[in-house]
Amino acid sequence: MTGSILTQVQETARQARLAASQMASGAKESRTAALLSMADELAKNASQILEANKKDCQRAEALVSEGKMQASFLKRLHLDEAKLGSVIEGIRQIAHMDDQLGKTTLKRELDDGLKLYRVICPIGVILVIFESRPDALPQIMSLLVKSGNAGLIKGGKEAENSNRIIFDCLEKALSKNGFPKGAFNLLTGREEVADLLKLDNYVDLVIPRGSNDLVRHIQENTRIPVLGHAEGICHLYVDEKADLDMALKLSVDSKVQYPAACNAIETLLVHRKVAGVFLSQVIAALKEKNVEVRVDKSAIESFKLKDVGTADDTDWASEYSDLTISLKVVDSLDEAIDHINTYGSGHTDCIVTDDEKTFDRFFAEVNSAGVYCNASTRFADGFRYGFGAEVGISTGKLHPRGPVGVEGIVTYKYKLIGSGQTVAEYSGDNARCFTHRDCQ
Amino acid sequence: MTGSILTQVQETARQARLAASQMASGAKESRTAALLSMADELAKNASQILEANKKDCQRAEALVSEGKMQASFLKRLHLDEAKLGSVIEGIRQIAHMDDQLGKTTLKRELDDGLKLYRVICPIGVILVIFESRPDALPQIMSLLVKSGNAGLIKGGKEAENSNRIIFDCLEKALSKNGFPKGAFNLLTGREEVADLLKLDNYVDLVIPRGSNDLVRHIQENTRIPVLGHAEGICHLYVDEKADLDMALKLSVDSKVQYPAACNAIETLLVHRKVAGVFLSQVIAALKEKNVEVRVDKSAIESFKLKDVGTADDTDWASEYSDLTISLKVVDSLDEAIDHINTYGSGHTDCIVTDDEKTFDRFFAEVNSAGVYCNASTRFADGFRYGFGAEVGISTGKLHPRGPVGVEGIVTYKYKLIGSGQTVAEYSGDNARCFTHRDCQ
Repeated sequence: MTGSILTQVQETARQARLAASQMASGAKESRTAALLSMADELAKNASQILEANKKDCQRAEALVSEGKMQASFLKRLHLDEAKLGSVIEGIRQIAHMDDQLGKTTLKRELDDGLKLYRVICPIGVILVIFESRPDALPQIMSLLVKSGNAGLIKGGKEAENSNRIIFDCLEKALSKNGFPKGAFNLLTGREEVADLLKLDNYVDLVIPRGSNDLVRHIQENTRIPVLGHAEGICHLYVDEKADLDMALKLSVDSKVQYPAACNAIETLLVHRKVAGVFLSQVIAALKEKNVEVRVDKSAIESFKLKDVGTADDTDWASEYSDLTISLKVVDSLDEAIDHINTYGSGHTDCIVTDDEKTFDRFFAEVNSAGVYCNASTRFADGFRYGFGAEVGISTGKLHPRGPVGVEGIVTYKYKLIGSGQTVAEYSGDNARCFTHRDCQ
Repeated sequence: MTGSILTQVQETARQARLAASQMASGAKESRTAALLSMADELAKNASQILEANKKDCQRAEALVSEGKMQASFLKRLHLDEAKLGSVIEGIRQIAHMDDQLGKTTLKRELDDGLKLYRVICPIGVILVIFESRPDALPQIMSLLVKSGNAGLIKGGKEAENSNRIIFDCLEKALSKNGFPKGAFNLLTGREEVADLLKLDNYVDLVIPRGSNDLVRHIQENTRIPVLGHAEGICHLYVDEKADLDMALKLSVDSKVQYPAACNAIETLLVHRKVAGVFLSQVIAALKEKNVEVRVDKSAIESFKLKDVGTADDTDWASEYSDLTISLKVVDSLDEAIDHINTYGSGHTDCIVTDDEKTFDRFFAEVNSAGVYCNASTRFADGFRYGFGAEVGISTGKLHPRGPVGVEGIVTYKYKLIGSGQTVAEYSGDNARCFTHRDCQ
């Protein structure tokens, strides 16, 4: 039985690989047409999609009332006309965005009649695994279509009905526009994913969007490169030269605007020189928003803080993903940077300061995908960056990094066009010399 | 004992991480000065370096005569004035190359007073492992210096004396130019490497340059990203519209100019329409260069070939790294592409054709880091591409790909500069809108 499932999964992956090869030579116009058609199909079938989503939500509500599902899931699962409308609008935006494929990023004459080009191309077959939110499916698929990649997509079981009808609409649009069969596949079982993780000859990249446990499990169980992040331990550092009103506003937004998001902060670092004034203000403001505040022991003593919890090394390394925050007083910029590089997860970290030089050092030395000055860490998001949408946020250092839109799921290949040049001509006595001239 | 080695290695790695943080804020001028100074130190100590190399070569010669080492090692180990001179010249070239660090590759206004930048920065700490060739050490170190990365470098035992004196010269130059202590380290033992592969909190990237076995062993024994390639199975496809004289010349160069190189071809694919004429010519030319030719069975029969070996599926998947070649007759461009994507290693593949449209399809559909037209596969090399040198050749599809110079060992981080913007202002009723305006 396992054997036959593996064979079926292998066949699905092989189909995707073949389709990817064909998609790689597809024209920009057909990608744009397909995207517009995807948006139209969703708009045309809006009422059926919302109907299917109602079924998923009813089932989920029953599970919540039985205590088998968290209530926060419901909100993420729910689709309404407005949410669907903005998804459709998003797809149209992506359709009209600049097309990356085929762009030349290096053009160099190596010698007379020998030219080198570096040309952007798709990565190939991408396996995406995501949880509850059915609006993620059209976002992800539109980024894959725009970037010329084939996709094997596994959605959450709780959004099964919504995902199925959305996928069928999108696939209909693709097939109308001549996309090869098997270019996209909606997977249903967990076993299929486990099998696909073994197929590094067919699958080029895995993008898991879900809990830390899911991501770490995948990272540890495949040789295929994984794009994403397990943890989002983000910091806000209030410098001695900070505008404290701004720092207060940003601390609250970065923590409470959506505490479950990976770009929400977990730790607030405060320079000792401003701590005397700032601590009581920020603790009061956070508590008003029902945030549990845990402060390092020495600061509690120095500043005689009351009614706060105590933070220890476990806290500095924790992603609460909830209304809890840790707070540490630091003596210097260096200590703040060191704390962030030691305990952070390389996601997004912000300094609040009016001193440009201080930010320059913070920017150079903090080792994260996003390093901000005077803005909420919650801006780390593909839509907010103007990428249309995102397939995930990457904390890896080999390209891509940060919110990943189309540019993050393309790569390049070198094109060399000669007129019969051999390497032997460039070695030994009377060797020809390279010109290495960059050209337009 | 193992415990104390691990502690020492951890300390080395921690030092490198600290140094990397300081190097990240270093100025372009200090990198250039350090590189010029590295070249000067090597030039000043040339005779001592050649002396040390003589010792290594003498020891190696003894091992060769005892049959404990391959004779081909000797040539790679040997340094002379000319070879050292070109290494020094190479470092000066890298010093004068365009500096990548700090370059802004995206500049976008998100809203009034809220600006997003994508800025190139070093990757951090890179562990490089290489075999015999002592000239690789200064090449690798100069690329690391240029790109602002710290380096943990393990050379081959057989080049111990050469590497030590070269490293000391380079380190002296760096320390003169204010580079932090511990930024570079020459490792000596294999155990140290094994321990470093576990330190994914300190080491950002591993670059193995050596045998397939070494690379595969490393890929399977670390969670740190590995840059490089295990195999180099490259192809030359002679299309029906090929200039056959050119195809003959390129076949010989791609195979015999340096058969042990990863960019030498292993398989020649020949379109059936030209096979009648071409096969006998190319087989004769290759045999003249002492190449063993293995041809697919049906072609031997169809074209009544004599005195050639028979190639089977094992041959298509073999990297001979020697004077052996496999040869297959194909019926179409599609069959050639399919063969390459099935058996190739994604390194470098070439088509010989006079038909532009045919190359366009070959380029789009062959899934390799280098896809050539009418030029030897042996051009896949950082120096030949004009990168000054290379740290390796990557067949991975997440950036970088192909010969990896400075651009392949830098990454970027996003810089967001605001004036106190919160995400809450951009949600709900009366939400502010993003402008998403790209700016100069």
